[in-house]
Formats: sequence, structure tokens, C-alpha cells
Amino acid sequence: MLYESGLMKRGGRRPGNPNTREAILVAARELFAAEGFDATTIRKVATAAGVDPALVHHYFGTKEDLFRAAVSAPVDPAEFIPKIFARSREEIPEALARTFLGVWDDPVTGRPFVAFLRTAVGNRVATKLVSEFFGIQIQRRALGALHTGIPAAEVPLRSTLVASQLLGLALTRYVLRFEPLASAPFETVVASITPALRHALYGPIVVPA
Amino acid sequence: MLYESGLMKRGGRRPGNPNTREAILVAARELFAAEGFDATTIRKVATAAGVDPALVHHYFGTKEDLFRAAVSAPVDPAEFIPKIFARSREEIPEALARTFLGVWDDPVTGRPFVAFLRTAVGNRVATKLVSEFFGIQIQRRALGALHTGIPAAEVPLRSTLVASQLLGLALTRYVLRFEPLASAPFETVVASITPALRHALYGPIVVPA
Repeated sequence: MLYESGLMKRGGRRPGNPNTREAILVAARELFAAEGFDATTIRKVATAAGVDPALVHHYFGTKEDLFRAAVSAPVDPAEFIPKIFARSREEIPEALARTFLGVWDDPVTGRPFVAFLRTAVGNRVATKLVSEFFGIQIQRRALGALHTGIPAAEVPLRSTLVASQLLGLALTRYVLRFEPLASAPFETVVASITPALRHALYGPIVVPA
Repeated sequence: MLYESGLMKRGGRRPGNPNTREAILVAARELFAAEGFDATTIRKVATAAGVDPALVHHYFGTKEDLFRAAVSAPVDPAEFIPKIFARSREEIPEALARTFLGVWDDPVTGRPFVAFLRTAVGNRVATKLVSEFFGIQIQRRALGALHTGIPAAEVPLRSTLVASQLLGLALTRYVLRFEPLASAPFETVVASITPALRHALYGPIVVPA
């Protein structure tokens, strides 16, 4: 729903024929799962769905937009991650904690994220899609172009360590709801996780050869 | 399967009538989900399954054993957590990383854990069960009786922060398989996560009033 409203705002696109939309989404899920994000093209999805590629663009926008629709991702991390990393090196860990917690703590933006994480973990097809998307797209786009002083060779491992921190928090606080973490105040959680994020970003790590 | 073999070794119990076993498991899942771990008793499960309580004990052992069977938990964390925490305060963070990674990296013990995590996250009923079990049982039994010098008031939050670290790693390395973390060597991961575990155990945190 959030995605839909975002889509409408961004492109002013129409929801279109529900059957056509659904056929495109089904084809997209199958292709993303079978061939991965990079190898899947709008053209291939259109062919599989029996529609014109222009219609796929018209309904869903870019390939990334289509992917998010296919896996029901509630927001586009590529939109807010660069904002966090535009801050100073010193401020980034806490800004990351605050932004992430802010999105997940908010009932409106948080609930679709919980559903998204549940789907990504519980469903093997969705897992592969999400792994492709986060592993390749976010790393490449958002974390790859930083001004944090992190050596390029360390960016891939550090970005997955950050993901490990944030997804671990999401899992325990919002999905499994382990107490007292689930009910801990915003500021408590920010203070508790910022040092671990700082370590993941800047601390000593061993980069595999 | 691991659980089954463990069960057979521990108690020498027999698998029993498959229909009766299944009826007990179904009743147990329903009761654990509806009433929680503490309020569910072997007697209530037996009544719901239409069998004698002695038969539930005979097939499944204790209530914890029954719970693990109901959610298919592959091993009993209460068995290995005390061993880790018997070490010196300084050694605990790395021992925790090594033990956790050792279990998950091993194809035999790791695969059921991945299935367990998938189930716990993807299925709402299982989520509640796992949350109860880890949140209450592990915290109470394993982490509550430590000799780490952690103030008692901080044990609950710190234990959930440790869970957040370890489950985040499990999610990214083994379930979502984010690269390069998924393929990183054992020692790389140990070195990368130990400082975050050290922080979760001993670092400055804000304990909610």
C-alpha cells in the first residue's frame, strides 16, 4: 500500500488492469527468482507475461520498482541510505540507528517492513530475491559511493555487517519481539546499538583475500 | 531428526504411535501459541490431545522437550550456553562467537537451525512460541546465573542485545546469504563479530527504568 502510494506520487502511474498487473507480478517473481535480479529484464518479464514491455514500464516504472512491487518492499532504501551517509563520518553510526529505528518504530511505515522481513525469511523464493536486491543493489549504489574513508576493499564486508546489525535488531525487536528489547524506548535502543554499528563501519575487521 | 536422535539417546524413549505423537504435537502447538510457554502444562496438552499425561512424558520428556519438538528446534541452547558462560569474562564474547558459528557453519547441525529460524520468522504461531522460549527460558536459565559481573538489572536487555547480534548474523550469513558475509571464512566472521558481542555484554548501555 505504501509502495502503491509512493508509486502514484512519483510517476503518477495508474494501477491499471488488475489481471494484467498480477500477470506481470507473477512473471516478475518467477524470473527474478530463477535468473536473479541482474539477468532479469523488463523485456523478459513482459514476454513471460504476454504483454508489451512499455506496459510493464507504465505500470511499475523501473526494474527496481518492479522488484519492490514483486516482493512488496514497503520503501526504497536507496532513497534514504545516501542521506544518512552524506553526514560526517562521526555522525553516521547514530544517524543510521535513528533512521532505521524511526522507520521500524513508526506503526505506518514499520508494519509493512515487518511483513517484508517475514516474507523474505519465511519464503525461499522471496529470500533469494531480497538477497539479490540488498546484496547487490544497495551495496553497489548506496554504500559503494561513500565519503566515509572506508577503503573500497572493505565496503562489501562492512555493509553486510551493518545489515547483520540492523536485521538482527529488526528480528528481535519487531518480529520475535524479545523483551525487554521489544518495549525499550527509542533512545535506549539508539544508545545500545550505535557502538555496534560504529564497529561494523569503522572497527577492526579481517577482510578475506 | 537431530532432536529425535537426541531424544532417543537421552531418554531411550520410543517414537511411539505416529498418530498419537502427531496429535500431541498439534495440541502442544495450539496451547503454546494460545496460552504461552509458562501457562501450558503437560496435563493440558494431554487433555487436548485426548491421551494420558504419562504418555506425553513418555513420548516427549519434559515440557521444554515437548516445546522443542513442537517447533522443531534442532538443539537445546540451554545445554551449550552455560558452557560458554563458564569461561572467563574476557573469553566469553569470542567463545560465544565461535560456538554459535560452529553450530551454524556445520552442515549437519546448521541446516535444521536455518529451517528453525525460517519457521520462527515466517510463521506467526511459531514466532510467538520461539519468542516465549528464548525470551523467557534462555534468559532465565542460562544468562540469569552468570558469573560475568553483569549487574542483574542489565541481564535482560544485554541478553536480548546478544540475541540480536547472533540472530542478525544467522539471518544475513545463513538465511538471506548476503555476500561476502555468507562465504567469509570462519575466523573472519569470529573476528568481525566478537567486538559487537563484547559491547552487547559489557559495553555502555542505557537500561530502561
